[in-house]
Amino acid sequence: MSVRTPDPDPDWTPEDAARPASNPGWLSDIELAEVRGRLPLLYVEAVPVRLDGLGVVTEVGALLRAKPTGEINRTLVSGRVLFGETLRDALFRHLEKDLGPMAFPQLPPSPVPFSVAEYFPMPGISPFTDDRQHAVSLAYIVPVTGTCEPRQDALEVTWMTPEEACQPALIAEMEGGRGTLVKQALASVGRLP
Amino acid sequence: MSVRTPDPDPDWTPEDAARPASNPGWLSDIELAEVRGRLPLLYVEAVPVRLDGLGVVTEVGALLRAKPTGEINRTLVSGRVLFGETLRDALFRHLEKDLGPMAFPQLPPSPVPFSVAEYFPMPGISPFTDDRQHAVSLAYIVPVTGTCEPRQDALEVTWMTPEEACQPALIAEMEGGRGTLVKQALASVGRLP
Amino acid sequence: MSVRTPDPDPDWTPEDAARPASNPGWLSDIELAEVRGRLPLLYVEAVPVRLDGLGVVTEVGALLRAKPTGEINRTLVSGRVLFGETLRDALFRHLEKDLGPMAFPQLPPSPVPFSVAEYFPMPGISPFTDDRQHAVSLAYIVPVTGTCEPRQDALEVTWMTPEEACQPALIAEMEGGRGTLVKQALASVGRLP
Amino acid sequence: MSVRTPDPDPDWTPEDAARPASNPGWLSDIELAEVRGRLPLLYVEAVPVRLDGLGVVTEVGALLRAKPTGEINRTLVSGRVLFGETLRDALFRHLEKDLGPMAFPQLPPSPVPFSVAEYFPMPGISPFTDDRQHAVSLAYIVPVTGTCEPRQDALEVTWMTPEEACQPALIAEMEGGRGTLVKQALASVGRLP
Repeated sequence: MSVRTPDPDPDWTPEDAARPASNPGWLSDIELAEVRGRLPLLYVEAVPVRLDGLGVVTEVGALLRAKPTGEINRTLVSGRVLFGETLRDALFRHLEKDLGPMAFPQLPPSPVPFSVAEYFPMPGISPFTDDRQHAVSLAYIVPVTGTCEPRQDALEVTWMTPEEACQPALIAEMEGGRGTLVKQALASVGRLP
Repeated sequence: MSVRTPDPDPDWTPEDAARPASNPGWLSDIELAEVRGRLPLLYVEAVPVRLDGLGVVTEVGALLRAKPTGEINRTLVSGRVLFGETLRDALFRHLEKDLGPMAFPQLPPSPVPFSVAEYFPMPGISPFTDDRQHAVSLAYIVPVTGTCEPRQDALEVTWMTPEEACQPALIAEMEGGRGTLVKQALASVGRLP
Repeated sequence: MSVRTPDPDPDWTPEDAARPASNPGWLSDIELAEVRGRLPLLYVEAVPVRLDGLGVVTEVGALLRAKPTGEINRTLVSGRVLFGETLRDALFRHLEKDLGPMAFPQLPPSPVPFSVAEYFPMPGISPFTDDRQHAVSLAYIVPVTGTCEPRQDALEVTWMTPEEACQPALIAEMEGGRGTLVKQALASVGRLP
Repeated sequence: MSVRTPDPDPDWTPEDAARPASNPGWLSDIELAEVRGRLPLLYVEAVPVRLDGLGVVTEVGALLRAKPTGEINRTLVSGRVLFGETLRDALFRHLEKDLGPMAFPQLPPSPVPFSVAEYFPMPGISPFTDDRQHAVSLAYIVPVTGTCEPRQDALEVTWMTPEEACQPALIAEMEGGRGTLVKQALASVGRLP
């Protein structure tokens, strides 16, 4: 049976409540905590963007998030891939969870990510860290055409020009080294300032 | 001054008529014919696709075209990049020319093509041939959300499932080896049967 | 403590014997069996290739493998990513394990895979199946310049031209749908017949 | 017949002298000058890199070049694709021309570039400028394993760590905006600082 801790699983969504606790396909928080020290976990991640009529990236979106500690930081759309779930289903689920049901994200035709971010609990192995776990995240650029209404613990979605998104202060605010992921995303679309 | 031959330049569009013949940025047909034997020409090419709500390619579009000889064949959206024109502008111009103004193509955020097709006048150097010229074509997958009304010499746009598009008979009908390009496109989105 | 079953963990290597059984970073076989029904496991996969002097893929390598049941099939270099291990380290470890120490594989400069293969226990969700687990595999093309001496349960490495590798009989022999992965690999390097 | 101007065609190589002046497949300098104002020219470009044993980019190479005006700047390996020449042949020819015969460049298996750089005579259209022409350049990352002996007008090849290569002073020294191309290259291999 699933036991929720005060620091909620950031992957938990209201839909989770409907899942039978005994479903062998998902882990309880306690089981997840154990597994987190044993296996790399698979994540998907999205850099939301706005495009102009010719497909040029004009803006990048970041989530402003309040952590349980009260600390504020910025992050991208990201979350775990569940057992039996396709990458596209996971990407869509996390986009809807983080940007709301009216964001109308356009998932890319190709399942090949623009970058693979390796998050380690200890710094120095890669540009990315996650003190909870070793996670490997497939990162996609996802054009968003609708209106974003962040749910859960996200305070707002901030849209920035490529130049604004790459300012050192903002890069430093991005959780777990995701500023590097934003720069990689912009480079892959020819928009790195 | 531009002289039109009975076999029209497939890149010619109604808008061309409005261009001053003396514009140094474009070539007359005679000049173009001369350059075609001296330099590789730069092309852009689009594989039109339909996506489902999760971004999976469900259909591929091909143009059914009647050649001046009366021969019928299939091809993709393609055309030359003009002097001073960006790749995106060229891609959009040829998409509108071949699919009509209501196709609503979604140009990809990244300018990196899924394949670079090298067309040579003589077969055997690459999978692609073009007896008029040596052309190098940057090929993109372009989701199309609207209605296609082929203009110019195209008879219709045929939409096919990935399985249908990869049947040997259909692959063989594609002009200049473009059947290989269709298979490369489907492979790049994980949909090669 | 780790208990080995008659059907050995294909990821086990002689080096594993040197690892303390109590290392919290790895799972015993029993634990791994439990996790396999709960979480997607992260794999890396390599399509070994031979290149000519201009970088053109001339041959593709496949492993001929005898299963514990006596059945013979073909597969690619693949294996699990361990806790704390980078993707490159995992890729190198599995290449050495499957091709021997004299293969001299050239790992690609970019960590972005040419394809992401999603293996599910049940067929029909994707082109790939693995009846043991849900695995997500980052697939890379890896030029090999030395001599391959398959170790473990692999009988030999077979080198084939792109045309040979894509023959339906051979595609069908590839384990878990990996024939599709070979075709995707060849398409990504412009060598799909 | 070809007439050489004091400012030599940077694409000219000693081998050119052996070509019959009447070869219809190449242009004289006068013809080339005329075409340069009419058509986008197709280029290939290489970012030379050094790799460690796991394929990680450890150094980036740039050419230090003295222009006819005496000005010194930095550039990458680049040059025109000739009529009838494959992209790989062009890439290899320019690598040998700029890095010497003992550089042993490893051309990538895939013909898909990491970036397509659009050079325009006028600034502001893209990050790249070339006051001679409109050129579209397919850019590749090319590991180099041997010794570089720059030929022609290149003074030396400078090897830099990713951090050194991305310093603003160095980025600014790169000809025609190629500093952006270096950053895009490093981002594509996960090494953008």
